[in-house]
Amino acid sequence: MEFPVLDKINTPDDLKKLSPKELEQLCSDLRSYIVKVLSTHPGHLASGLGVVELAVALHYVFNTPDDKLVWDVGHQAYPHKILTGRKRQFETIRSYGGISGFPKMEESEFDSFGTGHSSTSISAALGMAVAAHLQGNDSRNHIAVIGDGSMTGGMAFEALNHAGEAGANVLVILNDNGISIDKSVGALSHYLTKITSSRTYNRVKTKIWDWSGDNAFGQRIRRFFRNILLNLKATFFKQSNMFEAFGFRYFGPIDGHNLPDLIKILTRLSTIKGPKLLHIVTQKGRGMEMAVQNPVTYHAPGEYDVDTGEQKKSNEKDQPLRYQEVFGNTILELARKNPKIVGITPAMPTGCSLNIMMEAMPDRCFDVGIAEQHAVTFAAGLASQGMVPFCNIYSSFMQRAYDQVIHDVALQKLQVVMCLDRAGLVGEDGPTHHGAFDYAYFRPIPNLVIAAPMNENELRNMMYTAQLPDGGPMVIRYPRGRSVNADWKKPFQTVEIGKGRCLRNGKDVAILSVGHIGNTAMKAAELLSTLGIEVGVYDMRFVKPIDESLLHEVARTYTHIVTIEDGVLEGGFGSAVLEFLADNGIELPVHRLGLPDRFITHGSLRELHRECHIDVDAVVETVNAIVKDSK
Amino acid sequence: MEFPVLDKINTPDDLKKLSPKELEQLCSDLRSYIVKVLSTHPGHLASGLGVVELAVALHYVFNTPDDKLVWDVGHQAYPHKILTGRKRQFETIRSYGGISGFPKMEESEFDSFGTGHSSTSISAALGMAVAAHLQGNDSRNHIAVIGDGSMTGGMAFEALNHAGEAGANVLVILNDNGISIDKSVGALSHYLTKITSSRTYNRVKTKIWDWSGDNAFGQRIRRFFRNILLNLKATFFKQSNMFEAFGFRYFGPIDGHNLPDLIKILTRLSTIKGPKLLHIVTQKGRGMEMAVQNPVTYHAPGEYDVDTGEQKKSNEKDQPLRYQEVFGNTILELARKNPKIVGITPAMPTGCSLNIMMEAMPDRCFDVGIAEQHAVTFAAGLASQGMVPFCNIYSSFMQRAYDQVIHDVALQKLQVVMCLDRAGLVGEDGPTHHGAFDYAYFRPIPNLVIAAPMNENELRNMMYTAQLPDGGPMVIRYPRGRSVNADWKKPFQTVEIGKGRCLRNGKDVAILSVGHIGNTAMKAAELLSTLGIEVGVYDMRFVKPIDESLLHEVARTYTHIVTIEDGVLEGGFGSAVLEFLADNGIELPVHRLGLPDRFITHGSLRELHRECHIDVDAVVETVNAIVKDSK
Repeated sequence: MEFPVLDKINTPDDLKKLSPKELEQLCSDLRSYIVKVLSTHPGHLASGLGVVELAVALHYVFNTPDDKLVWDVGHQAYPHKILTGRKRQFETIRSYGGISGFPKMEESEFDSFGTGHSSTSISAALGMAVAAHLQGNDSRNHIAVIGDGSMTGGMAFEALNHAGEAGANVLVILNDNGISIDKSVGALSHYLTKITSSRTYNRVKTKIWDWSGDNAFGQRIRRFFRNILLNLKATFFKQSNMFEAFGFRYFGPIDGHNLPDLIKILTRLSTIKGPKLLHIVTQKGRGMEMAVQNPVTYHAPGEYDVDTGEQKKSNEKDQPLRYQEVFGNTILELARKNPKIVGITPAMPTGCSLNIMMEAMPDRCFDVGIAEQHAVTFAAGLASQGMVPFCNIYSSFMQRAYDQVIHDVALQKLQVVMCLDRAGLVGEDGPTHHGAFDYAYFRPIPNLVIAAPMNENELRNMMYTAQLPDGGPMVIRYPRGRSVNADWKKPFQTVEIGKGRCLRNGKDVAILSVGHIGNTAMKAAELLSTLGIEVGVYDMRFVKPIDESLLHEVARTYTHIVTIEDGVLEGGFGSAVLEFLADNGIELPVHRLGLPDRFITHGSLRELHRECHIDVDAVVETVNAIVKDSK
Repeated sequence: MEFPVLDKINTPDDLKKLSPKELEQLCSDLRSYIVKVLSTHPGHLASGLGVVELAVALHYVFNTPDDKLVWDVGHQAYPHKILTGRKRQFETIRSYGGISGFPKMEESEFDSFGTGHSSTSISAALGMAVAAHLQGNDSRNHIAVIGDGSMTGGMAFEALNHAGEAGANVLVILNDNGISIDKSVGALSHYLTKITSSRTYNRVKTKIWDWSGDNAFGQRIRRFFRNILLNLKATFFKQSNMFEAFGFRYFGPIDGHNLPDLIKILTRLSTIKGPKLLHIVTQKGRGMEMAVQNPVTYHAPGEYDVDTGEQKKSNEKDQPLRYQEVFGNTILELARKNPKIVGITPAMPTGCSLNIMMEAMPDRCFDVGIAEQHAVTFAAGLASQGMVPFCNIYSSFMQRAYDQVIHDVALQKLQVVMCLDRAGLVGEDGPTHHGAFDYAYFRPIPNLVIAAPMNENELRNMMYTAQLPDGGPMVIRYPRGRSVNADWKKPFQTVEIGKGRCLRNGKDVAILSVGHIGNTAMKAAELLSTLGIEVGVYDMRFVKPIDESLLHEVARTYTHIVTIEDGVLEGGFGSAVLEFLADNGIELPVHRLGLPDRFITHGSLRELHRECHIDVDAVVETVNAIVKDSK
């Protein structure tokens, strides 16, 4: 059998019956199964491989789902999903109608709390623990598994500060692998390395291990010394450990791939009340050599050869660049000419392609850790002294820095360029990661300019414009994935702020779009043209300030307006058009296409655009209906 | 002369010429001046009194405004404002057209960075320090003064983590007074107390102090030992201090009211490169006995007797309760009946009146520190286990938890009741604190119910409705200040979700309002009635879901709609009405009243409502113009 033990496991109850040897085999089976499935069903690979032993140990020791288990960020939860009744569905992970790539309460009672964005797990687990206490249940365990990268997010500290005082029954497992998606940064990461590497404790432990034999008597000696050492350590670290300072009992660091050790310490911790932190050291990608060597690449590698691990390269030569690559190359190009430019990313240098500038100009790029709030205010501080920071944050993660954009950037009119990658629907990552809200949440903020490029040259020109002297705060939002033209590197041109453009003249119906989705509008217009319907298409470019003179022209020329956007309809681009018309006393029917008022599931972009009625067919249908009605 | 030394001081340059004795007198003058002015011009009193010596020492030692000084939260900056050219204008503080109650870049070159919300100072100072380094200036100093309360905000930790690694020239001064607005909470606060109280260092220092005389020789001895001790301390604490773990050099704790000590250590720190943290211990309200005894009351005491410190009580007996008091009493009333209810506040128990429930039910209330992000996800954790948390966060501070509301509450449809106090314009605190954006930023989020009560009974009924079984996430937003009726404690009634109400029938023009500002609409309608114009008035109650059947009725009955809201126009309540009309193909002119697309200054509510054209006169003018036009 390919997976001799895993084949027998459907729920954690099955797992609890296994012998130590079978448990080890289960870990091996889990790794093989994950590597096999993901080779053809792409997903987050390396994180899950790093916590196989932990997932097995947790479900072996604790009484899930009664005991509550929260996996921070959540893409590390694949082994957990497989062990908790979703082995069969695992092949559907992240695909439309399949299981989610993140823990999801609706999906399983074993997913105590949905995650996707980082650093939420301690807060959630603490809430559950306090609830249990108030409900008279002081024996339930509440476990948050959080990476060292996620620990740099401010809200994790807010939660530590509260938990340490609240004294509730929380176990934080710090999964320290020195990496988030890129390498972990910041003082905390050095600190963790220091307490891991320079520890007398580990040396003494190893010696006792070597000295005591692997027999029953030796094992009793080991147990005896382990207890003494754990106690000594607790005392010794009382004053000197950061987590102890926060009121947690600190345990570790221990090897997160040593299953017997994990089971032993978790068993012990399950009986200790109050806030505890277990520091385990793991290897991201464990068990797959190429992933261990290249954890950044194998974080989510796409398809690969299951035997060799080699990534399958699609033929990329003639394809347009990704928007992120256009950003990455362009910021470097601009920075070479303008010494004021610096680049900032909260832990996403590879994801947003700032790594291109980072390699060429390490002194002018800043990976600040998973810390969106700090990233934005840090940028504001730089801008207050005449620098021009480009702060690149995924659209959905920018929700974390909303107050900082208002309070530190916009209110003070500082020239911070906020580049929002992964704007609009992102596809397989689903509702936690869709960049659905940015137009709507930024549009109310005074002093902001909000731009969205329809293709790579527009992106370049907007970036160029944003860094010109005496500029103010500017948002540039663009989607995940590929841009439009292979010929991307045209000379820079200034884009007049708040100026849209006519892409195509027509009669009766004008389609107004903003950003990349304008390409959908154009395709629809061409299709309609073959049906004898000629619509106008306008790329407004800016949601704020909106091009009022162009809107006046449209209102004079057409009898119907269709707006299309890859953002929520409430308060978005289409609403800006409605506001313009109402404020100017213009009565004109407007049909708005955009994301409906519900959270959008995961799946391919094609499937999701279809579901949300913002694909080419939807535009064609909408215009057809208007034309039919007006006849 | 009343203020012998202060009278001679206009800028920090004047201050640098003073003798030690004069500097002490300056501190005394500053305190008297602040106490005198604020007795009749209300503002933040106790925080400023606590940092008089620090402000004097900083401007004495550092070369401001070239050296950069960032005052966290900013209401501690009054002495700084007086010392930096704003002594004369100090009487205008927080009044319309006067100087701001917070640092403001536009107001003075000495205000390096605007503050208002907490925990931003380290990020901003780090940005400035990195800018200086990139601009080839490695001698400039960058100082963030941050309270122990503000240090609990997550972004302060994000900044520490980055600063400790970046190695930039930043001096963080931790102003530890054990209090934010209410008493500081959390493990960090205990930790600071511990390192302050149990230190051998202080004991040894005091002994040397006693032993060495107060003569030249004695002073040299003191200096000598001080240096040894500082070095010893640095070594001893290398491993054991939380801030050292973050890569900062830690100094202190020292007495923040000992001016010579402050000047000495700041002088020394001004020559040390890299990230440093100076821990000073101060007394909030220092120098005014009543403020020291009651720092919560005297945080912003209103008018008081300058000699006795007694607060001047306005005759409150016949006045309606404040909305916050209605909240505070009602949550306790509900919690007595429903054991699932808990109360959560991020460091604002007195400000939001949760302290009423806190006293009666300490186990069911949680002050989580200045930690809005954690507050919301902690609430989500509680709700996931069947509790019904009421999370009370000021509207403008809720901007800090935007992602958590989307990702942890709304996406998972958890029954968290988010009570937004201080919604709409707040008056004297100005642009950082106006609750201007909440309708617009919450409306795009699926699954949220957004309600706003027009008076205290509506507030009570909405709170009652929010906690009924099987509810989902609900936002209830209400303003600062007093409600409407003295008779507030009527029996609870369920409010049907998404159901508005007609307050007054009329013809031609319907005014649609939401929340407390409906009272403005009603007053205007009564005034218009005396002019012979009868308008309809509708209290929509819910911005989401909006009452579509009521809107259909309005659209059938009237020829013009006026909407009014105390929030931004972009994407707000009025836009929701426009969206409804467009989506239903209804063509009807809509005139929207609300906050314009700029940041609104500080001043009285009357002045600001006037400026923003959302007072009774504005409604009357608007309706008159419509009626005149239609004739």
